[in-house]
Amino acid sequence: MSAVALGGGHGLHATLSALRQLTEDVTAVVTVADDGGSSGRLRRELGLLPPGDLRKAMAALAGEDRDSQLWTDLFRHRFGGTGALAGHAVGNLVLAGLLEQLGDPVAVLDVACRLLGVRGRVLPMCNSPLNIEADVKGLDEDAEVVRRIRGQVAIATTPGLVQRIRLSAPIGRPVGCPQAVEAVLGADLVLLGPGSWFTSVLPHLLVPELHDALLRTAAKKVLVLNLVPQPGETEGFSPECHLDVLCEHAPGLRVDAVIADVDSVPTPDRLTRAAAVLGARTHLARIAAPDAAERHDPGALAGCLLQVLGKTGVGGTGTWR
Amino acid sequence: MSAVALGGGHGLHATLSALRQLTEDVTAVVTVADDGGSSGRLRRELGLLPPGDLRKAMAALAGEDRDSQLWTDLFRHRFGGTGALAGHAVGNLVLAGLLEQLGDPVAVLDVACRLLGVRGRVLPMCNSPLNIEADVKGLDEDAEVVRRIRGQVAIATTPGLVQRIRLSAPIGRPVGCPQAVEAVLGADLVLLGPGSWFTSVLPHLLVPELHDALLRTAAKKVLVLNLVPQPGETEGFSPECHLDVLCEHAPGLRVDAVIADVDSVPTPDRLTRAAAVLGARTHLARIAAPDAAERHDPGALAGCLLQVLGKTGVGGTGTWR
Repeated sequence: MSAVALGGGHGLHATLSALRQLTEDVTAVVTVADDGGSSGRLRRELGLLPPGDLRKAMAALAGEDRDSQLWTDLFRHRFGGTGALAGHAVGNLVLAGLLEQLGDPVAVLDVACRLLGVRGRVLPMCNSPLNIEADVKGLDEDAEVVRRIRGQVAIATTPGLVQRIRLSAPIGRPVGCPQAVEAVLGADLVLLGPGSWFTSVLPHLLVPELHDALLRTAAKKVLVLNLVPQPGETEGFSPECHLDVLCEHAPGLRVDAVIADVDSVPTPDRLTRAAAVLGARTHLARIAAPDAAERHDPGALAGCLLQVLGKTGVGGTGTWR
Repeated sequence: MSAVALGGGHGLHATLSALRQLTEDVTAVVTVADDGGSSGRLRRELGLLPPGDLRKAMAALAGEDRDSQLWTDLFRHRFGGTGALAGHAVGNLVLAGLLEQLGDPVAVLDVACRLLGVRGRVLPMCNSPLNIEADVKGLDEDAEVVRRIRGQVAIATTPGLVQRIRLSAPIGRPVGCPQAVEAVLGADLVLLGPGSWFTSVLPHLLVPELHDALLRTAAKKVLVLNLVPQPGETEGFSPECHLDVLCEHAPGLRVDAVIADVDSVPTPDRLTRAAAVLGARTHLARIAAPDAAERHDPGALAGCLLQVLGKTGVGGTGTWR
């Protein structure tokens, strides 16, 4: 089975960790609009793709042998202190160096994935760094005034109510990474979410080639909802509200299934109705990690996915609605 | 044959490149007192071994397959621009990260050498960063006044006349890296020089365990002289003067042969007399690279070494004195 997961950050780490339990043919398609932390500094200083989310996706698919783990740990290691390097993850610096040296991000990621013994592939959603712009309400006294804010960090942490996002590229419009488009078209299963909704999940849908591939692919498309609303960008958003926003950003998109944790859906009927608009059935199960309610359990998520795929398997404890 | 080369920087690169033509069992023992450039910045910021000379030694012994060359090129790649990373070699950052993560410099170098497909081994002369201090004349109006200056860069570029150097460690005295000591004791051939005399060649002799190992080893000991005087620290130094200085810094040291380029020795008789003090014969040959008179030709140097070892071989065109 060929599976593709679209996303960024911790959410993507969760779906990749689940998928690697089901198949060796996993492709991560990673957002490239980050402008915060070590990635943001590298991006501003060197004009490169922000490497942090790519690095995290590699870590989720890294080999389990000693050498792969050693390099994965090194990639994750952040310099301490208070100097020029403080806070930079070593892997971000290695990816930045490879990007300067080889140019082609896909070649860079293939090389780095080999070092980390990655089973599967990690691809950027676009080959150039992107900016996100959002229309946000609730930042003025007049709650109806819409303000435009820019940048992933600013949007992810806005106290306002995000209405809509747009992407922009340094030159021309954002163009989908061809290998990522091909992966979506050739997949048996495509996962969207979980993750920061406006800044890690929706951006992929605004890249015309990826949007088009998601409409055309014969893959089962599965949307995985968040366990808790993201403070800032989706503070107070209900699960069904996440689906409404997704519909607005991806006209024509059909989804086969929506997976949500049973404890994070206060009104299942509303979610079922919102999912139906996308053509999806809703699958509720316990998918939160037993030790951390805000983190997905890869084994439970993998079990859910097997059920969605119509296969009986471990962890199939959820219910369809 | 087991060969060990002591040194740092470009000089060590030359001897390692020559030795790899003769044997797969090559160990580099690298100076760790650099305080300039990318290495100096990392050392000051993170308190680690300066990685630059270690990285250059690895490059000289790196594998020739595609992956080894790719990582070797990446290790050499320096970030451009004018930001916080400008001038840092990627390999220095990787070594710094590994040093923070693993602690033991020998383990770090073994891991990094594996990545670069190094045949042989690269070791630091000591496991903690060192400082060099020099007594220098000629910095005052009174030419006999001796001033103490500190730091590899300051010494290598002093307009004064270096009389003597000393090493100091952050805690206690400099202690030789045990694996480096072992390599010297077990070697068939040990090379000293070429390189910046006071800052890359002599420091090893001031580490008690290494000095002792050089006295005790049954290896043939060969001193390779520089092609041109180093501007700054050995400006105006004759070849024989290099030997005198070495004698003063390494009491009791005996050497089997001194190799020098025939064009860089204006007074061969004087060199022969100075070499005899160390117990060495002098071997003069053409060892400068045809395209760069200040760089050694690895093939020619390898030929010389074969002659010194009493083996007939390629490039044996020099003469004994």
